[in-house]
Amino acid sequence: MTGRIRNRQLAAKIVEAEEAAELIEPGDNVGMSGFTGAGYPKEVPGALAKRVAGANAEGRPMQIGLWTGASTAPELDGALAEVDGIDVRLPYQSDPVTRERINSGRMDYTDIHLSHVAQRAWQGIFGELDVAVVEVSGITAEGHLIPSASVGNNKTWLDRADKVILEVNSWQSEHLDGMHDIYYGTALPPERKPIPITHPADRIGVPYLECPPEKVIAVVETESPDRNTVFTPPDENSERIAGHVLDFLESEVRVGRIPRGLLPLQSGVGNVANAVLAGLGNGPFDQLTAYTEVIQDGMLQLLESDKLRIASATAFSLSPAAVDRFNRNAADFRDRIVLRPQEISNHPEVVRRLGCLAMNGIVEADIYGNINSTHLMGSRIQNGIGGSGDFARNAYVSIFMTPSVAKGGAVSSIVPMVSHVDHTEHDVDVIVTEQGLADLRGLSPRKRAERIIDQCAHPDFRPALRDYFDRAMSSSYGRHTPHLLGEALSWHQRFIDEGTMRTGA
Amino acid sequence: MTGRIRNRQLAAKIVEAEEAAELIEPGDNVGMSGFTGAGYPKEVPGALAKRVAGANAEGRPMQIGLWTGASTAPELDGALAEVDGIDVRLPYQSDPVTRERINSGRMDYTDIHLSHVAQRAWQGIFGELDVAVVEVSGITAEGHLIPSASVGNNKTWLDRADKVILEVNSWQSEHLDGMHDIYYGTALPPERKPIPITHPADRIGVPYLECPPEKVIAVVETESPDRNTVFTPPDENSERIAGHVLDFLESEVRVGRIPRGLLPLQSGVGNVANAVLAGLGNGPFDQLTAYTEVIQDGMLQLLESDKLRIASATAFSLSPAAVDRFNRNAADFRDRIVLRPQEISNHPEVVRRLGCLAMNGIVEADIYGNINSTHLMGSRIQNGIGGSGDFARNAYVSIFMTPSVAKGGAVSSIVPMVSHVDHTEHDVDVIVTEQGLADLRGLSPRKRAERIIDQCAHPDFRPALRDYFDRAMSSSYGRHTPHLLGEALSWHQRFIDEGTMRTGA
Repeated sequence: MTGRIRNRQLAAKIVEAEEAAELIEPGDNVGMSGFTGAGYPKEVPGALAKRVAGANAEGRPMQIGLWTGASTAPELDGALAEVDGIDVRLPYQSDPVTRERINSGRMDYTDIHLSHVAQRAWQGIFGELDVAVVEVSGITAEGHLIPSASVGNNKTWLDRADKVILEVNSWQSEHLDGMHDIYYGTALPPERKPIPITHPADRIGVPYLECPPEKVIAVVETESPDRNTVFTPPDENSERIAGHVLDFLESEVRVGRIPRGLLPLQSGVGNVANAVLAGLGNGPFDQLTAYTEVIQDGMLQLLESDKLRIASATAFSLSPAAVDRFNRNAADFRDRIVLRPQEISNHPEVVRRLGCLAMNGIVEADIYGNINSTHLMGSRIQNGIGGSGDFARNAYVSIFMTPSVAKGGAVSSIVPMVSHVDHTEHDVDVIVTEQGLADLRGLSPRKRAERIIDQCAHPDFRPALRDYFDRAMSSSYGRHTPHLLGEALSWHQRFIDEGTMRTGA
Repeated sequence: MTGRIRNRQLAAKIVEAEEAAELIEPGDNVGMSGFTGAGYPKEVPGALAKRVAGANAEGRPMQIGLWTGASTAPELDGALAEVDGIDVRLPYQSDPVTRERINSGRMDYTDIHLSHVAQRAWQGIFGELDVAVVEVSGITAEGHLIPSASVGNNKTWLDRADKVILEVNSWQSEHLDGMHDIYYGTALPPERKPIPITHPADRIGVPYLECPPEKVIAVVETESPDRNTVFTPPDENSERIAGHVLDFLESEVRVGRIPRGLLPLQSGVGNVANAVLAGLGNGPFDQLTAYTEVIQDGMLQLLESDKLRIASATAFSLSPAAVDRFNRNAADFRDRIVLRPQEISNHPEVVRRLGCLAMNGIVEADIYGNINSTHLMGSRIQNGIGGSGDFARNAYVSIFMTPSVAKGGAVSSIVPMVSHVDHTEHDVDVIVTEQGLADLRGLSPRKRAERIIDQCAHPDFRPALRDYFDRAMSSSYGRHTPHLLGEALSWHQRFIDEGTMRTGA
C-alpha cells in the first residue's frame, strides 16, 4: 500500500468525517489532539459541530467534555463553542468564541498547568475518556502512528480512551517522521522512575505513537493546513524589551552565573518573544539550545541561522511563511528538533535539571512582583496559564515580559495589586518592560516595589504607584508587603467603570 | 581523644562563644544552621547579639545578613532581632521579635521556597557568604562532621562560606550518627544529573558533612536543648478536620487512585497536622512512608506504633517529651529515619516522582481555591511559605487544612478573595475545614466556589459568601472567576477597621 495510510487493517476503517462524528455520543469526554494551533483534527470537529447544531434545532441539545493539548483553531474550538457543544473545556484555550462562552458563564473551563494534565487524566480526575480524536501525519505498515505537528497529550488520550478516531493529514510534511520522541516510561506513583533527560537533544522514547488497532473505530483522511498563526513582527517596544533581556543575559554571563552558550531557552509566543529570539539571532551567543513548549517563527529562524543547535518542544506554532520554509527543509531539521509529549516538554523534573531560562508574557504585574497571566480585571479569562508555571517555578531564571501599558495607554501593566495571581512573588525573578528591567532575585517585597516602580512602570503611572507605595508604607496594617486594601484594586475598578486606569481622564 | 570532638586539628580550635562571635564582621552574611527550632547554634548567636548591643550603645550599629535553613529559636532569631542586629533575613522565620521588626519595616525579609535556597546561594544571588555558624553533634577523628537534629542548608553553608564556626552540642543524641544522608551530587546547570531517589528510604549520599579544616576558624562546645516546641494536643476542630482527611484518603484508596499503603506523606506542623497523624495511627492504613520536611510529635508516634515504616525529612521538631523518648530510643530509629539536606527533602523532582500526599496549614482560602499561607490582611507577614510550595505544586494530592474561623469567630478563613496568594488556584486540590472537605480537582472556578462555600465555610459566614458569589455572578466584568473588585477585600478591611469580618457586629 502507498500513501499516508500503509496499514491494511486501519485503511479498512476509512470513513467520511460525518460518519466518524456520529460515533461520538452526547455527554462523551473527548480527548482531541492540538497544541498552539498545530496538529489538531481538521474535519471531525466541524462535522460534530454540525451534528450538535442539528440536535439543538431539534430541541435535544448535545454537549461534550473537550480535552486537548493546548489551544486549537476556529475549526475545532470555535466551531464547537459556536453551537454550545462544549460542557467542560480543559486544559487551555485561546479561541475568541470559546472565551466569550466561558466569560458569559455558559461554559466551564478548567485551567491547568500543562505538565499536570496527563497525570490527572491517569488519576481519572476528569472522569472517563470516551473517545480520542487525534491527527497523525501517517500510519506505517505495522500500524505505528506517525505523529503530526504537535504531540501534546496524544499519547495519554490514545492510551486512556475507549475508542479512537484518527485523522490522517497528508498536508503535514512527511519529514516529520522521526522527529518525535514519545516516552512510554511514565507511570503513576509509586512506580515512577527518573526521567533520563540531561540535555535538550536527548531522545528517550520511540518515534511513534502506539494504539491497539481494535480501539480505532474510524480513520478520516484530510489535507488541511494548520491554523494560520500570524507572525507579528517586533514593534519598537518589543525591541526595547528584547534589548533589556539581552543586556541582562550578557551581564549574567559576564559575572559567571550562566555559561557562554546560555542555558536551554524557553520562550512563549507573540511579538515580544519573537523580538527576543531575533535579538539572540543577532547577539553574541551561539551554540544555543531550547527546551520549550513551542517552536514559533523566531525559534525556527534561530535554527536556520545555526545559532540554535537544538530545539526540544511539544508543538510548532508557525506562520504560513515559516511553515512553508519548514516543509521545504524539514529533512534538514530532523536531527535538530525533538517533539515530545507535553508531560515531558514541561516536566518540572527536567526543567529544573536543565536550568531553563524561562521567558513568558503576562497580563499584569504588581509592585511586589506577583504576576497575573490569565485574567482581565480579575474575572475575565483571557487564555490560560498554559506551561508558564511549569517553567517559571523550575527555571534557573524566570523572566516575565510585557509592554508597560496596554489599551493605548489606558491600562498600566504595573499595578498596586494584581487582580489575579498565577505566579506568586516566590516564582518571579525578573520583570521587563520597554522602560527597563527589574532584577528581583533575593529582594524583600519593599525592595522589589522600589525597583519595579523605578525600572518597569510607565512614566505616566509611576508617580501614582510611588504615591500608593509611600502611603501604604505609612499606614498599612503590616509593612512587610504594604497595602491599602480599600484602594489596592481600585485601578481595575476604574478601568471597568471609566475605561481607563488613569485618574482625572 | 574522647568526647564529641575527636579530631586533633579541630580540637585545637576550641574557644568560648564570645571569642568566636568576635570573628564575625559587621556587614557579614552569616549562614547559620537550624530548621524548625532544631540544630541551630546555641551560644554564638547570643554572644554576637551582646556584641551588637555593645556596638549599638557606642553609636556604631552593627548588622549582619542572616541565612538559615528555616525557623530557629529565641536564642538566635529573637536575640539578634531584639538588638536590631539583622539587616536581611532569609529564607524563613517564625520568631515573634523578628516578625515585629519585619512588619514594622525595620528588617528586610526574603521569603523563599525552601528548595530554591541552596541553588540561589550557589548562583550568588544573596551575595557572598562570609561565615557559616553550624551546630553539629560531633566531629570524627578524621574530621568528618556528624550533623545535628537538622540538616537544612548546612552543606551549602559549609561549602560556600569563607570561614566556618562550629558549635558541637553534646546534648544531641550520639545515636544521630548514621541517620543523615548528605548528597554531594548536586550541581549548577548544565551539569545536573537525575537525583536517584525512587523510595523515601533510599540513601544516596554519605552520613557526614565535609568541611576543609583550614576553613574552620573556631569550635565552640555547647550542651543545650533545642527549642521547646510545644505539643498542642488535637482539639475538637482539629479532630474533625482529621476525620474528613481520613475519609477522603479511604475513599481515594477505595476507588483505586492511591495504593493501600498510601503514598509518601508530607505534613506541616501544629495541632491540625498532629490530629491527622494521630488519625492515621488509629486508621486502617499501615506500611506507611513519609517524605517530608520535619518529624514532629505525630510523626514520631506513627514510627513508634510501627504504622510508619520510614520517615525522610530534613529536621526534627519535637516537644520536650518526644525529644526525651527519641533520645532514649534513637538507636532503634536509625534505620527508619533519614535526614537530608533541604534541597533534597523538598526537591520538586523527588516530590513529584514519589507522588507525595501534601498536607499543609494555611492562613486563608478564597472561594475560588487560592491560598494565602503567609500574610495577615494582605500585608503583615506571619511566618513564610517554607516548603509548602515545593510540596503543593508537585504533590500527587495537595491538601490544605484550616479551622473555618479564627480570632474567636471574628475572622473567616474562607473569604471572597484572599489578601495574598502563595498557592494559586492551579495548585490546590483539596481544602478542608472542620465543616467539611472540598475536592476541587478538575473543577472550574465557579464549581469550586459552590463546593468551597457549601463544604468549608463556617455557617455564620456562608450566607455572606453565597451572596457575594451570586452578586458577582450577575455583575462581574467576566464570569470565569466572578468578582466584585470594590468589595473583594472588604472583609479584610473591616477586620482592620473594626476587629471583625462580621457585619453589624
